Amino acid sequence: MDKKISEKVINRLTLYHCILQDFISKGNEYISSKQIATLLKIDDSQVRKDINLLNNSGKSRVGYIVKELKKSIETNLGFAKTKKAYIIGAGNLGMALAKYDNFTSYGLNIISMFDNDKSKIGGEINNKKILDIKDLPKFTKEHGVEIAILTVPGQYAQETADYIVKSNIKYIWNFTPTVLDVPEDIQVWNENLMGNFLQFTYNI
Amino acid sequence: MDKKISEKVINRLTLYHCILQDFISKGNEYISSKQIATLLKIDDSQVRKDINLLNNSGKSRVGYIVKELKKSIETNLGFAKTKKAYIIGAGNLGMALAKYDNFTSYGLNIISMFDNDKSKIGGEINNKKILDIKDLPKFTKEHGVEIAILTVPGQYAQETADYIVKSNIKYIWNFTPTVLDVPEDIQVWNENLMGNFLQFTYNI
Repeated sequence: MDKKISEKVINRLTLYHCILQDFISKGNEYISSKQIATLLKIDDSQVRKDINLLNNSGKSRVGYIVKELKKSIETNLGFAKTKKAYIIGAGNLGMALAKYDNFTSYGLNIISMFDNDKSKIGGEINNKKILDIKDLPKFTKEHGVEIAILTVPGQYAQETADYIVKSNIKYIWNFTPTVLDVPEDIQVWNENLMGNFLQFTYNI
Repeated sequence: MDKKISEKVINRLTLYHCILQDFISKGNEYISSKQIATLLKIDDSQVRKDINLLNNSGKSRVGYIVKELKKSIETNLGFAKTKKAYIIGAGNLGMALAKYDNFTSYGLNIISMFDNDKSKIGGEINNKKILDIKDLPKFTKEHGVEIAILTVPGQYAQETADYIVKSNIKYIWNFTPTVLDVPEDIQVWNENLMGNFLQFTYNI
């Protein structure tokens, strides 16, 4: 694929992917743009336009071939390019993310968790060891980890970010409600839950 | 405000709001569009454009008055219009959301949790009782709840959605990796974590 896929399209394609997984588990072979559009309450012309970006060959007269379309999304969005990550903060949110097995099929390989709570260190969640935050720099280097998933309480977010940036992490997936002040070359994705909520409820 | 604020702008304004809270806690009185822009790695003309939508009067020669700008965002995005919600699923993710005190200041009032696990029912997380899912229809009616926050495992998402739709819930904040099939008049916001992740890492 030569065309750059926009963020909005990536987001929609991931939702199509969820629908396709569901269709496969129900034993359906074909799916129409209309079926996808109805589930997501969007226009079916939008669905067709998004799918056209994929160079997907699995189109028949009765609709898209579910398995081929799914594969095509995976190829185009790079699900096979596995990226190593760890979670910082073994609280409820960190645990929830550690337990979320779906991540692996999207190329997100969470290999461990970090915390500073002695009572948690040494524990294990879904095959991910909870390690001492002190060992993070060494671990990052040894395992070539690129992504840190930040789930510490908001008041510790900035100091933790400073610490992981020094450890050479280049991508931070930020689940804290704090906007992080990091160097120019560090990429942060703010999982802005309240922003999402307000977008959702703005018209209530 | 007469202009409709777009979803992207709402999202950015919430991030500005986080920054303003942080500035207040540090005792700063003024903030410039440049300071906000640098933290978010966006263009400062974008920040000024967004803020211009607010009819914000707190602009001085040394920058925006932090407290007034914060208040202005709150008024424009309707933080004061409290919306009642409950969480369905008292697993790690549900617990994490229940513990997240920030929600209240954005107008999201989570009043209880629901689960079907007898060992969890009767418990309490952050002043929110965990109730029996069987009592959900009655509770929804009695308390006039509008929003259901869905954090059940993916395989139970659809049946739970069917159940809450019957109970007259109109808004579902969906944290499960399942695309829900719901009637036309029900609004679903998909907290599409994997879509976000892929947007973030698409260029790695």
